[in-house]
Amino acid sequence: MGKGEETKSVILNRAVQIASKEGLDGLTIGTLAEDLNMSKSGIFGKFQSKETLQIEVLKVGSEMFRRNVIYPALKSEPGLKRIRTLFAAWLDWVGGDALPGGCVVLGSLSNYDDKPGVVRDYLLKVELELLRLIERFLSEVKESKILKPGFKSDLFIQELWGIVLGFQLYHRFFQDAKSKARAKASFEELIQRSLAQ
Amino acid sequence: MGKGEETKSVILNRAVQIASKEGLDGLTIGTLAEDLNMSKSGIFGKFQSKETLQIEVLKVGSEMFRRNVIYPALKSEPGLKRIRTLFAAWLDWVGGDALPGGCVVLGSLSNYDDKPGVVRDYLLKVELELLRLIERFLSEVKESKILKPGFKSDLFIQELWGIVLGFQLYHRFFQDAKSKARAKASFEELIQRSLAQ
Repeated sequence: MGKGEETKSVILNRAVQIASKEGLDGLTIGTLAEDLNMSKSGIFGKFQSKETLQIEVLKVGSEMFRRNVIYPALKSEPGLKRIRTLFAAWLDWVGGDALPGGCVVLGSLSNYDDKPGVVRDYLLKVELELLRLIERFLSEVKESKILKPGFKSDLFIQELWGIVLGFQLYHRFFQDAKSKARAKASFEELIQRSLAQ
Repeated sequence: MGKGEETKSVILNRAVQIASKEGLDGLTIGTLAEDLNMSKSGIFGKFQSKETLQIEVLKVGSEMFRRNVIYPALKSEPGLKRIRTLFAAWLDWVGGDALPGGCVVLGSLSNYDDKPGVVRDYLLKVELELLRLIERFLSEVKESKILKPGFKSDLFIQELWGIVLGFQLYHRFFQDAKSKARAKASFEELIQRSLAQ
């Protein structure tokens, strides 16, 4: 890594921390420059625009998500075990403290539902990739013929998202210590009623 | 309403629209002044600080929520019907277009999970009131003895929140036309498995 790339990486690392706590829109080139004791123009020179910086932050955030949630699932054996691994890792990620204010991607979604533009496009791309991946994991479970007749992947995945988002709210916003146990119980219940009797 | 109160109400109404689309933090006194063709100091004179403005916006937002979601439920008969009315009204509210970017309270939650201060305190108060109210509605259902033994209100409510947040994501972010039907199916399923056999 050259000196220029190194500086960029230092800026980006700090930007991810700030965006995690303040939200992607709370991250401004001005506050970032102040925080890093750099000039605004120095940061502009590396990122050209606020949108470029935001997308770079989301790239780092989604790479962290991949490493912490998706890779463990991919390494697990296909089928029910892979879905369980994905969910457990996802809860650990949402409830963990690798970033000071939680997942920078997940924390940005509700802010970008009504803001068209390159940032929303990037978020949508990342999240649709995740949906497709979960669909693939579910089709592996289907192959083992353990799911009940009429099982609906799309309903399962929306419910799964609901459990994760409910956990995020209860854990991070309400700071309720029982939230993770409840999320696990809901997930287990969802699995059980998806199986053939 | 005096002239001063009227101006304040006009400012606030516009502020709620902006906060709904841009997020509570995307609302600045500068952009609001520009939008309304007023001076910044004129707006400061009415609200004193950004936090006061944000809390006033949340007050309007939660009053809208009350009118659209809570009052219909309170007018409904106690028991299962009241819970169903609450949920149906909640989905209509989250999926509706009374505000350009959706519920200003719900849209702010994930932004304030890690930001201590008066705005978070206010949001928490409003959301805890809602939790207590749903608990009360559920205790009315319990009285009718139709719930299964071992029914857990706290698990039910976290799942209910999950269904609403999952719907919000699928409807507003993914813009998936089937999201409401799925949320209704998940809710009905939650009700059915809460009942004694």
